[in-house]
Order: sequence, then C-alpha cells, then structure tokens
Amino acid sequence: MSRVYNFSAGPAAIPDPVLGRIKDDIPDWNGTGMSVMEASHRSKAFVAVAEKAEQDLRQLLLIPGEYSVLFPQGGATMQFSMVPLNISAEGDTVDFVQTGSWSKKAIAEARRYCAVNVVADSADQNFTYVPDQDSWLHSEDAAYLHYCANETIAGVEFPFVPESGETPLVCDMSSTMLSRPVDVCRFGVIYAGAQKNIGPAGIAVVIVRKDLIGNAREMTPALLDYATYDAAGSMSNTPPCFAWYVASLVFEYLLAEGGLEVIGKRNQQKAGKLYAAIDASDFYSNRVRVDYRSWMNVPFVLADASLDPTFLSQAEEEGLVNLKGHRSVGGMRASIYNAMPEAGIDALIAFMQEFERTHG
Amino acid sequence: MSRVYNFSAGPAAIPDPVLGRIKDDIPDWNGTGMSVMEASHRSKAFVAVAEKAEQDLRQLLLIPGEYSVLFPQGGATMQFSMVPLNISAEGDTVDFVQTGSWSKKAIAEARRYCAVNVVADSADQNFTYVPDQDSWLHSEDAAYLHYCANETIAGVEFPFVPESGETPLVCDMSSTMLSRPVDVCRFGVIYAGAQKNIGPAGIAVVIVRKDLIGNAREMTPALLDYATYDAAGSMSNTPPCFAWYVASLVFEYLLAEGGLEVIGKRNQQKAGKLYAAIDASDFYSNRVRVDYRSWMNVPFVLADASLDPTFLSQAEEEGLVNLKGHRSVGGMRASIYNAMPEAGIDALIAFMQEFERTHG
Repeated sequence: MSRVYNFSAGPAAIPDPVLGRIKDDIPDWNGTGMSVMEASHRSKAFVAVAEKAEQDLRQLLLIPGEYSVLFPQGGATMQFSMVPLNISAEGDTVDFVQTGSWSKKAIAEARRYCAVNVVADSADQNFTYVPDQDSWLHSEDAAYLHYCANETIAGVEFPFVPESGETPLVCDMSSTMLSRPVDVCRFGVIYAGAQKNIGPAGIAVVIVRKDLIGNAREMTPALLDYATYDAAGSMSNTPPCFAWYVASLVFEYLLAEGGLEVIGKRNQQKAGKLYAAIDASDFYSNRVRVDYRSWMNVPFVLADASLDPTFLSQAEEEGLVNLKGHRSVGGMRASIYNAMPEAGIDALIAFMQEFERTHG
Repeated sequence: MSRVYNFSAGPAAIPDPVLGRIKDDIPDWNGTGMSVMEASHRSKAFVAVAEKAEQDLRQLLLIPGEYSVLFPQGGATMQFSMVPLNISAEGDTVDFVQTGSWSKKAIAEARRYCAVNVVADSADQNFTYVPDQDSWLHSEDAAYLHYCANETIAGVEFPFVPESGETPLVCDMSSTMLSRPVDVCRFGVIYAGAQKNIGPAGIAVVIVRKDLIGNAREMTPALLDYATYDAAGSMSNTPPCFAWYVASLVFEYLLAEGGLEVIGKRNQQKAGKLYAAIDASDFYSNRVRVDYRSWMNVPFVLADASLDPTFLSQAEEEGLVNLKGHRSVGGMRASIYNAMPEAGIDALIAFMQEFERTHG
C-alpha cells in the first residue's frame, strides 16, 4: 500500500522527511559505518545527537535556563508516579483538575502518594468542557496543581494556562507539546510522552524548574528521581537512543518548518477546517463545547451509528486509517497532530461529504 | 563509510539481515501504509508483533508455561529497583554475589529497600574470577539470591548456574541472554536490557516465575510492578513499540539461524579464537582466570600501554571500531555479541598480529 493518512491517536504519524532520514541512516549513519541503534550512547556521535535534541527543543519552546530538560523512559504514565514522588512529600495535598481519562489516571496514581484534591471536574458533562477557573476549589497549601492540557479521548483542550500563584503548575502536555507555542515560565513541570508530536513511543520529555529537582522521597527508585537524569544528561544508564535520535530529527524538522508559531497556525487551520465541516452537516456532530475543542483530536459521531462500520471500512479503502473512536466513547476520532498535512484533512472532509451524499 | 566491525559493549551491533528488514519496512510496513513507529500499539498488526515476539522468545529459551515474559522499559537498571520492590518485603534480607560493576550497582539500589548480604565478592582480585559456590556465605532466609551472569567491564562470566535451593534465583542476564541455551527452570527471575543481543536500547526482557508476581510492595509505582505488565501483556500504557519490533525481528533471525544451540557454539568458537590469539602472544594479555572468561566481552591489554592510542586509531582505520576498554579499567575490550560474525574476529586477530609485528 502507498502511504496512508494515519489518524492514530498515538503512536501517531511521523513527518515524511523524518522517516526519509531514518531510512537513509540505515545501515550507515553519518559515515559511522553503523546504524544509530548500534552506536554507544557514550560515543561522540550519539552525545552530539542528545545535545542537539536539547538545544533544538529549547529553541522551539524558548525554555529558560532555570529549567532542565530530561528524557526519561516510561512515557507520561511513568510521570504519573514520578511527579508525586519528586514534587510532593508524605502527607502533602496536591490539586488536580479532572477533565477526562488521562487526568483520572494521573489522579489514581497520585492518590497512592498524596491526598488528592480535585479542584474541578467535568465528568458531569462527559468531559466535554473545561470548568472555568473561577469555580475551582484550590487547596490552601497544595504541593502542586496538575492538569492535562488535552484529553485525547473526548478531544477536549484547555484554551488557557491555569493561574497557580506560588503553587508549582504541573502539566501533562503529551498530546499538545510542540503543536503550538507555550509559555514555559508559567510551569513547574511539563511532561509529555513522545508518541504524538515528538517521536516514537519509548521516551518522554520532562521540562522541570531546577529548584524542583533534588527533593525526591527517600524510597524513590533511582530511575524515577529527576535528579538522576539532571545529573547525567539523562544518561545515568543506557537511554532509548533510537527514540531520542528520532525526536532530535523531529525537532530539527520543526525548526526548519519555521518553528512553533508556524506549526501552531497550521494546526489551528487544520482543526478549524475539520470542525467547520462537521458543524456544517447534520450527519456528523462533535459533542465538545466550541471553546474547548481540541486541535489535536477531533472526535465525531454519525447521526446513525449503525453506519460506523461502513464509514470506517470505506475510509480505509481511501487510505484514511485509524479513524475509529476510543472504545470508551465510540464513534470516530481524527487525530491530527503535526505530521498530518492539510491535504489529509482535505481528503478526510471530501470523503465525509461523499459518504454523507451516499448514505445521508 | 562501509559497514564496520562494531565491538561496542552496548548498544551493540544488530544483525545485518535485521537491519535490512527495518530499512525495508520504512515507510510502508507490511502493506499498512505506515512505518511500525507510527502504528497504534492496539492495532492488530502491532499486537501480532508483540505476540510473536513472546512466542519466539519462549521457543528460543524453552520458557515453561509457569513463567511470564514481560517487556518493560528502563533497561536492566530499572530492574535493580523492580526486583527488590517485587520480590522482597520490608525488613527482608537478600543475597548478592558481587563480581563486578554491574552487580555492585544492583547491590547499591537493593540496599535502599533490603538488608543486603554479599555472599561472595571477587573485588580482592579486581573482579577477574567468580568465587566457588562452596565458599559462599548464604543467609538463613534470603528473599532471593542475585547474580550477574556476565560482567561486561572486566569480562568475567559465571560458568555455572548457582544452586539456590528454595530461594528464588535472580539473574541479570543483560549481556548473555540469547548468546547460548539456558535452563530457565533454575530461575525465579531473569532480566536483561535489550542492547546487547536482543535489540535497540529502550526495552528490557523479564522472565519471571508467575508465583513471584503480585507481591509488590504497597508503594511500588504502577509501572514498576510486575503485575501491571503481566495483566496487560506489557501494554498497560504505550510500550516502546519500535524496540519491541526490532527484538521480534532478532528472535525470528535467531530461530532461522538454528536457535541457541547453534548460536552458543558460534559464540564459544569466536571467543575461543580470540583468547587463543591473545594467549599466544606476549604483546597482548587478558587478566581474567581462564575458567571465568566471558564469551561476550574480551578485554585485553597491550604490554606497552603507551601504544593504546595508536592501536585504537589504526584499528579504526581498518574498520574495527569501539575497541577502547571501559574507562575504569583501560586497555581494550572487544565485545563480540551474537551479531559479530566470525569474520570480524578474524579481522581483529589479523590486525592484532600485524600491529604486534610492526610495534612489538
């Protein structure tokens, strides 16, 4: 099959030019006579990759010097444990906003280490909005305030960065990091699994304010302590070199495309087109309140759900794949991360309109 | 540069046919229209990879049904924490054999969770042998007995599997797993980081007797609990799909080569040739006692250490790379895992003999 438009929620599409580089680099990477998978993480060639990855990420996100950039394994889920182990002490209370499945999972893990205060919860309307911050019930003395910037399942996104005062703000940015500019200074910790906009699964990016490093609880496993990564350039043990290298190529690609202002505009444009097509039809609908609609994950349902299997199989024949919604909500979901070109959105909309004409 | 002979201790060489498959599979893997990096871990295509990886590994190592096979992230170093958290309770004593740097690191992490009794220690002779088991001072009631089958830095290897009676035997097999047959039934837990004989860094293999799963300490982070992986086929969260896929290709390759009996004979032959060449010369020497010499990592020193830089640079010109010994011991080290062909050994020996003729 020729390349498809891959609407997977993650692991997700990787930009074609990056895939081309990866292919070219096997089995001889930059004249080393080996692939990057075979290079020692201590080799000059690989250390240069790691350093460039950090530099480029700092440039993309304008990360200030008082923040460290760490590349641990275990994805965002490992951060669900690492954040409370590193940023809170026994007996602490932590504040969480609950806006969907991912914040729920983060809360469940944090509860094992802290008292969790849910400051706001949108479960009352099936996680289709973000409660106004005016209504949030903050703790007196929370160790941190945690939220998930974008919930991939319901497709609901924070259109604002919460105010947290002196309380460190912690954000699971797995599905939005690098999709647009962000003001890093507002945060204590930003973390993201790679497999949406960064690279292949198997590596995470953690951006953490340096003063929050070095306070891990006594029994924290060595590889769950931010200080371990900070002290060793994320190479205290053998890192996931290949995933790190691909992330580095992605960062380079994003810079070459013009950086996150450009990327953000593209993403807004792509999402806007798709939501407009959905809203213009009675055949399709999206349940998320307009202000909180995700730029990254666009769920939609057909008025007649019995047509779902036909929709999915015909879409697949057209090279539009992985459109099935998450099993917990059904319907469809188009995940349209950075690597999805506008042509993919156009092809999806054209298919949806044709499907509606035939089956509407 | 054309392909080199890569003697890296890890990440290490990957078999050429496996690299060829990886290259061919970009950007269209098995007619899916995407690379494996972009496929959902829940997709049929990827689930088939994961299942085949386990089946092939079970066939290679003859893993009995009462053992689970897990694929966590974090390499062997994460297992240094996971083993005590899963296989011991607070207040327990655990037994360790100390035969080099890797067992020392495992001991340091275990001490944070248990009382560690070092049953035997070869530090007295610079870790150049394994103490006879007759001399070991076992605890009365250890939760487990841990050893490292092969120490990559000094190049010292256990030529036997220790007797542990009813005590679960735990082995760090990072640098020997899949290099020869092993009797899995002797063990409670076998673990290995991938980046020697299994695949790229970023995934580990843990083979654990099922009765040892489900007893993790209360505060164990979710992704450090063997039960999390066992319950979800190692997919409770997004796994390191690409590394898993490469491991699967390596397993398939090893089966096609004839399995571990064949591979083991080849490795013994390769190591035997290289040690014979070293022993036949006064110009080179290996300090490890003959019975404990590693088949995987062959350190050697030049009689005149001032020639080391010349040796290394001339070797590199001949396409023999990564021969520098670990900084803690100096000299040279040839790591000759499965992917190193006998032709690479022959080329190294020919170079060594020529170098001796010129500089001896």
